[in-house]
Amino acid sequence: MINYRQFFSRSARGMKRSEIRELLKLTRKEGIISFAGGLPAPELFPVNEITDIVEDLMSKVGTTMLQYGPTEGDPLLREQLVEMLRAEGVELNIDNLFIVTSSQQGLDLISKILVDPGDIIMSGTPTYVGALGAFNAYGAEVHGIRLDNRGINTALLEYEITRLTLKGRKPKAIYVIPDFQNPTGITLDIQRRKELIHIAEKHDLILIEDSPYRQLRFEGEPVKPIISMNSERVISLYTFSKILVPGFRLGWMAGPKELIEKAIVAKQSTDLCAPTFNQMVVAEFIRRGLLDKQIPRIRDAYRDNRDFMLSMLEKHMPSLPGLKWTKPEGGLFLWVTLPDYMDANTMFLEAVEKQVAYVVGSAFDPDGQDTSSFRLNFSYANKHQIEEGIKRLAGVIEARASEREGVSTPIAP
Amino acid sequence: MINYRQFFSRSARGMKRSEIRELLKLTRKEGIISFAGGLPAPELFPVNEITDIVEDLMSKVGTTMLQYGPTEGDPLLREQLVEMLRAEGVELNIDNLFIVTSSQQGLDLISKILVDPGDIIMSGTPTYVGALGAFNAYGAEVHGIRLDNRGINTALLEYEITRLTLKGRKPKAIYVIPDFQNPTGITLDIQRRKELIHIAEKHDLILIEDSPYRQLRFEGEPVKPIISMNSERVISLYTFSKILVPGFRLGWMAGPKELIEKAIVAKQSTDLCAPTFNQMVVAEFIRRGLLDKQIPRIRDAYRDNRDFMLSMLEKHMPSLPGLKWTKPEGGLFLWVTLPDYMDANTMFLEAVEKQVAYVVGSAFDPDGQDTSSFRLNFSYANKHQIEEGIKRLAGVIEARASEREGVSTPIAP
Repeated sequence: MINYRQFFSRSARGMKRSEIRELLKLTRKEGIISFAGGLPAPELFPVNEITDIVEDLMSKVGTTMLQYGPTEGDPLLREQLVEMLRAEGVELNIDNLFIVTSSQQGLDLISKILVDPGDIIMSGTPTYVGALGAFNAYGAEVHGIRLDNRGINTALLEYEITRLTLKGRKPKAIYVIPDFQNPTGITLDIQRRKELIHIAEKHDLILIEDSPYRQLRFEGEPVKPIISMNSERVISLYTFSKILVPGFRLGWMAGPKELIEKAIVAKQSTDLCAPTFNQMVVAEFIRRGLLDKQIPRIRDAYRDNRDFMLSMLEKHMPSLPGLKWTKPEGGLFLWVTLPDYMDANTMFLEAVEKQVAYVVGSAFDPDGQDTSSFRLNFSYANKHQIEEGIKRLAGVIEARASEREGVSTPIAP
Repeated sequence: MINYRQFFSRSARGMKRSEIRELLKLTRKEGIISFAGGLPAPELFPVNEITDIVEDLMSKVGTTMLQYGPTEGDPLLREQLVEMLRAEGVELNIDNLFIVTSSQQGLDLISKILVDPGDIIMSGTPTYVGALGAFNAYGAEVHGIRLDNRGINTALLEYEITRLTLKGRKPKAIYVIPDFQNPTGITLDIQRRKELIHIAEKHDLILIEDSPYRQLRFEGEPVKPIISMNSERVISLYTFSKILVPGFRLGWMAGPKELIEKAIVAKQSTDLCAPTFNQMVVAEFIRRGLLDKQIPRIRDAYRDNRDFMLSMLEKHMPSLPGLKWTKPEGGLFLWVTLPDYMDANTMFLEAVEKQVAYVVGSAFDPDGQDTSSFRLNFSYANKHQIEEGIKRLAGVIEARASEREGVSTPIAP
């Protein structure tokens, strides 16, 4: 019997199947209403439009679509994305942007070019688990800074950076999801964004802005992208998974030329190039003006779902001190905080028994310490499921609350 | 001005744009006949068949094709590939195999799970540059062992492994391209394959078998895949780029469950999953029996091109001591060795001036020391180009030979 462990790299030894994936398996039972996943609504996928484009393009440039392409990505698609970002006030040209095979790959490439084992990355917490996975795979130590209702707490962040720097352990980068953050749905306000840049400049750090949901704002004014306020220290990641389809695995990364150039070199040995076929289909989708129609469709549908889920929470949740939830202005997720005495982890099994599922808050926490929160997804379930699922969840929470009352209330004489 | 270098990881500091890519830029001039690239022949891409499949599948399972999929890959495609390998005598089941977003990603994932900075990987040399890039990105030290006409020299290999182990620097893995190797076209014979396994067992190492061209054998009996002779220590990589199309970026990895399982976990944080759309199209292509027709088409076309290139070399190359070339039994490449006194690097610029291009041998050498060889690709150019290109190349070599004669031959009295 071979001892495989001896062959594993240090970071591979620590790699585990994601907790969320394992928990999600429990939720794939008949009859369970799941708010756990993070899938976009498939009924909104533009199946016919994509099929038309494939037929048309294949008859004209089929062999180019099926051949290798440049590591940087399809030139037309890059130009289109440069334009999209310019419209948001981001000053950049084509050398500042390239195509990644999913924004998850973007996180992997950023880690590859920045992280040596033991390097510190600061991150808001709770945060996107896939980012933690990417950073950890290169041996990074992720230090989490609590979010409040305005996003990452910059005062705490700067305190912690200063403390680490004084110990001779200056962090390399700060990772944030500024818009309708996964998992909380919270948006980082403009003042905090400015403070982040100030901190990055003062302490000489790189800022990683991961913004997969930015285009899905339901209401209110967009807050400026961080990269639009500083072109020297900010790397931004975007994805087609949430505004078009995830099945093509395409995203894009923008940033200072020096970092982008290095990330492109790193991509060469990672997968040579993103799928040419998929990139050309997406570029044509944009060229035909279809993305400009697709995004509002998704936005309207998700806004509708969010409104409905919020109204169901309002209607069915018991009125308990400490029980609250976020009201995100966009994105796919909202975040429920339980009264202190309730444990979201043990409650998860009860919820699954009652045929409803969420993701426990501790899964999004680099320290795994958050035991009183959970994430709800509102993009995937239909209204009937949302109503029924929230009722079930409310029942589970109510039962916990009455148990507690039962324990703490002395028996009347 | 920001000092970006301070932020780079140690391996990123050493990352350079690939030499081949830079040289290839010189070869993209009007009128140049290039044998430098490694592109499959686009005229063989099954454009119509793929378009038909997309139309058909999109109308039936469009939303599934465009959604996220499992990290391991499409279950049908995995089953089909398990069957394909079983037909080659490889005993495995679905847990031993998963889909990678290009076999280049396979090399990246293998490096991610095995390599800590300073770890040693043994490799035949010359070898595939993309593998060196993937290993180096994780800080591996690659030790090259010369190939002879039977593939990697196993006696030298074992000597070097023993020497390193005695120095306390035991290597972790051996990397080989056993079939019609890139760049030389050489196939590792069965005896050598057995010796490799023996060495891996004796010294407790992992064997990485990278076989992108295996299905493209023009003649002779296939030599058994290394993985069919040992299921415990061998990881094998295959790709659809050479037998179907590169533009979908799909390959597969097979190996012992423990390593495959870890590589799948590593893939989660690398890109979550390979493109669902592309995988389902390929699975349907196989299900319709089209791959079984496509492979012989490619094989016949490349055999024809190889034969023609060999006949042109025979016809036009000067007869010089030391000038020789390989006669590969499959694949995309052959390898020319120059007389000792000729330098393939300086000759490259002359060749480009005469409107013909190759890749210099030193580009494939971890030590960069091979200065008397170059690689010719025979899959991409047409016959007219092959004839004209080889004539030009022969002219350049002849000119070098006569210069030398001019120098070394004393002037007659």
